[in-house]
Amino acid sequence: MNGTKPVGLIIGRFQPLHKGHIEMIRKVSSECSMVIIGIGSAQYSHVPDNPFTSGERYSMIYRSMKAEGINNTVIVPIEDMNIYSLWVSKVRSLCPPFDVVYSNNNATKRLFSEAGYQVHGSPIYNRQEFSGTEVRRRIAEGGDWRSLIPKEAAKVIEEIDGVERIRSIYGGSPDESE
Amino acid sequence: MNGTKPVGLIIGRFQPLHKGHIEMIRKVSSECSMVIIGIGSAQYSHVPDNPFTSGERYSMIYRSMKAEGINNTVIVPIEDMNIYSLWVSKVRSLCPPFDVVYSNNNATKRLFSEAGYQVHGSPIYNRQEFSGTEVRRRIAEGGDWRSLIPKEAAKVIEEIDGVERIRSIYGGSPDESE
Amino acid sequence: MNGTKPVGLIIGRFQPLHKGHIEMIRKVSSECSMVIIGIGSAQYSHVPDNPFTSGERYSMIYRSMKAEGINNTVIVPIEDMNIYSLWVSKVRSLCPPFDVVYSNNNATKRLFSEAGYQVHGSPIYNRQEFSGTEVRRRIAEGGDWRSLIPKEAAKVIEEIDGVERIRSIYGGSPDESE
Amino acid sequence: MNGTKPVGLIIGRFQPLHKGHIEMIRKVSSECSMVIIGIGSAQYSHVPDNPFTSGERYSMIYRSMKAEGINNTVIVPIEDMNIYSLWVSKVRSLCPPFDVVYSNNNATKRLFSEAGYQVHGSPIYNRQEFSGTEVRRRIAEGGDWRSLIPKEAAKVIEEIDGVERIRSIYGGSPDESE
Amino acid sequence: MNGTKPVGLIIGRFQPLHKGHIEMIRKVSSECSMVIIGIGSAQYSHVPDNPFTSGERYSMIYRSMKAEGINNTVIVPIEDMNIYSLWVSKVRSLCPPFDVVYSNNNATKRLFSEAGYQVHGSPIYNRQEFSGTEVRRRIAEGGDWRSLIPKEAAKVIEEIDGVERIRSIYGGSPDESE
Amino acid sequence: MNGTKPVGLIIGRFQPLHKGHIEMIRKVSSECSMVIIGIGSAQYSHVPDNPFTSGERYSMIYRSMKAEGINNTVIVPIEDMNIYSLWVSKVRSLCPPFDVVYSNNNATKRLFSEAGYQVHGSPIYNRQEFSGTEVRRRIAEGGDWRSLIPKEAAKVIEEIDGVERIRSIYGGSPDESE
Repeated sequence: MNGTKPVGLIIGRFQPLHKGHIEMIRKVSSECSMVIIGIGSAQYSHVPDNPFTSGERYSMIYRSMKAEGINNTVIVPIEDMNIYSLWVSKVRSLCPPFDVVYSNNNATKRLFSEAGYQVHGSPIYNRQEFSGTEVRRRIAEGGDWRSLIPKEAAKVIEEIDGVERIRSIYGGSPDESE
Repeated sequence: MNGTKPVGLIIGRFQPLHKGHIEMIRKVSSECSMVIIGIGSAQYSHVPDNPFTSGERYSMIYRSMKAEGINNTVIVPIEDMNIYSLWVSKVRSLCPPFDVVYSNNNATKRLFSEAGYQVHGSPIYNRQEFSGTEVRRRIAEGGDWRSLIPKEAAKVIEEIDGVERIRSIYGGSPDESE
Repeated sequence: MNGTKPVGLIIGRFQPLHKGHIEMIRKVSSECSMVIIGIGSAQYSHVPDNPFTSGERYSMIYRSMKAEGINNTVIVPIEDMNIYSLWVSKVRSLCPPFDVVYSNNNATKRLFSEAGYQVHGSPIYNRQEFSGTEVRRRIAEGGDWRSLIPKEAAKVIEEIDGVERIRSIYGGSPDESE
Repeated sequence: MNGTKPVGLIIGRFQPLHKGHIEMIRKVSSECSMVIIGIGSAQYSHVPDNPFTSGERYSMIYRSMKAEGINNTVIVPIEDMNIYSLWVSKVRSLCPPFDVVYSNNNATKRLFSEAGYQVHGSPIYNRQEFSGTEVRRRIAEGGDWRSLIPKEAAKVIEEIDGVERIRSIYGGSPDESE
Repeated sequence: MNGTKPVGLIIGRFQPLHKGHIEMIRKVSSECSMVIIGIGSAQYSHVPDNPFTSGERYSMIYRSMKAEGINNTVIVPIEDMNIYSLWVSKVRSLCPPFDVVYSNNNATKRLFSEAGYQVHGSPIYNRQEFSGTEVRRRIAEGGDWRSLIPKEAAKVIEEIDGVERIRSIYGGSPDESE
Repeated sequence: MNGTKPVGLIIGRFQPLHKGHIEMIRKVSSECSMVIIGIGSAQYSHVPDNPFTSGERYSMIYRSMKAEGINNTVIVPIEDMNIYSLWVSKVRSLCPPFDVVYSNNNATKRLFSEAGYQVHGSPIYNRQEFSGTEVRRRIAEGGDWRSLIPKEAAKVIEEIDGVERIRSIYGGSPDESE
């Protein structure tokens, strides 16, 4: 699991996996002996910001890695905890050992660097379009979302009737009933 | 618990029980052999959106059913979990078996229909006035709230000094102290 | 732990401890045989509203009490629970026995008075400036925050590189990654 | 919900409801204006000591009360928490108001009496046979369990294939896999 | 992820991965298009029955699959919940879709078959020796444990100083301090 | 909070505080600039192994420190979590910074030394008698327990009617009701 190249960790929510993620993973994959892809907020699903289950997101990533020919990734679902003093320890206990964390999130970067990890920003690929928020918005409103995400992710969304799910849940969560 | 008519499930927060709820329960009650009334967000109380405890809401419903002569309901408190992939299983484990879910909440409808349940919309009775939000607002601001809710619910609110409670907690929750 | 004077309880988040807190503690300290200082939201840290860990806040309070010569306080971290029907019981189980609760938060006052406690408002000392929100804002934006908090609290913030932490986490929490 | 007679609370696990429970409920029912039947350990099921879900136990009780003609009971599922300093507050928040607690469990009696409740022991009816442990043992080993429980409880067990469930789970829980 | 062969799920604790697991995975791997290996009790570590973290077990499995040339597995950590009415839903939400569950644990088999899954027993390979309990016992007592587990699992144990860890924690857990 | 002497951490359950604890604290207190006394299993009470609340134990320790003239201790309640990969991070987030951990528990020592802390065994003072288990046994059975614990701890136990509590709860916990 080690060698001369480091092991890298990328954490995202992948709601859904989009082409910006693919570019980031591809680049980190070339710099590292292994890339751990952490699926954040793994316990959540069926709400507007987190429509897909962890298992559905796992499928999107796994199948896209195959299709893209990226061979040195492993996938680890990571349930959120909003107790951030424990979060790095939680990530560490769930993942194989890693050396470098790639993130553009300042809080993530701060937490891992307080814990002594090397932290890299990740390159940005057209963040306007390649964002989960934009993909979910287009699905909900009927825009062109397929061009923003890899083919295998789109297939998963179709297999689980994800378009209909996103449109339904934009109507409010169950705990908002009157 | 079965017969030729189905068993129905209605989930609400009943903060507090209002006359719109009564009409909905009465209608479902006539279509079903038994109606399960699930008290959602059961663990919450003493905050602006959820002022009453589950037990207080249980009293409102139980006493109003007696007063209205609706005889085929059972009441089940259901604690919220924001992990919606588990929520239907949780409801199912807490309730007697049911066949049809009545709801106007799109997310609730989606979750139960993904799980294979028959889901019906519920008729709407003057949603402007007959809403928990409106009742709580009138209590907080001193408007006429009694006309919106059944008599027994109003009695419970008086017995627990609920008007004063609602006015107090509109001043912010304990974790917002400076 | 008892005597002719009562035991008082003050609950705050102390994010960070500021001079308004010091004045309140000093006044309550003179009226009580002992003052329990409850550190609320103890489990949270590294987010914009709760940047400091419970231990860091414990240090701020403990060292400031020494420096101010206030000798009859004890400090108790109290993790938040948003289930308020249990909250008073939780506070009671964590603290030595107390008689009077001092608070300006209406919900806190309501909960303790429903549970039969004597509740006092606390005097207000320039709430515009002496507020955690204001101190955190000045740290994030580079204003004069040192004049608002006691010297020992400022030293703790420096020892843990707290200025840099606050500036980092204003960029969003880890579960908001795209 | 009140009158000259008090409101009583009985808490049990009802794994399953047996004839000893029925006798106890009948007696308390005659002494009280209303009896709250709390289903303890409501979240557990599918393990040797707690084979039935809360909903299944709710059905057993509800249908048996109808069959026995006991008309003044309400049923409240209560999830266990092993934090006993909060437990009485939790029960209180879930139930309509009650005056007297009936129990033969010393710890339960102690907790409610520390909280100021009136606590009564409950009469004992052949505890050797009328015990959940004995019923479950007979189901697992193929003895005569039907004679120990009310008819409606037996019907529920048959409807859910409960005999087979109990025999399966005596083989160890899922977290004991090698 | 689909094809003519089904997708299989194997859940184990892998404390540690041993040669019996390898044989089972190899056999299921040949019958399935993909095998999901669920790491159960993922949150536990540093106790006698669960000494290794989920990440350490992930490494053992991932590296052994490479070494054995088994190419159609994915690995999913699954935190235990002792609320078994929700457990199948939790597993389903974390994993890519699966068709068949392989297990020798009767409770696991029951839960998945109540949920409508096809369940297979798994072949047994010298269960006396190839058991986690036996491996941990030998590590603690200084016997020959290396012959019971695959080479890559032994390497992981050495890299994390696992022998010393197991010997230490056999002395009691932190919450048993006097 | 620092100086030339280190800051020490002692974690115990203090059920109840006994004379062995006092001797240990006195010795560590003389070696350290400050001693943090962590009250472990802080959330538990009213069960045979953990009869006293965290607040009651806080009182025992605080009052005994005063009586013994030990002036450099601070007290921090620490709720148990059985997820040991997070436990050291949790302790660290709750306590002021510390340098050395004093413990005779092998698992505690292992966890803190894996996290890079200096760990010392603590001297043993007649462990046969000076143990919480022995004190609780004597209270339950009516032996001489007062001679094993400091005077102020005995006073707290009397003030809360602790003898009667311990005798009551030896009769079984609430979730064991039949």
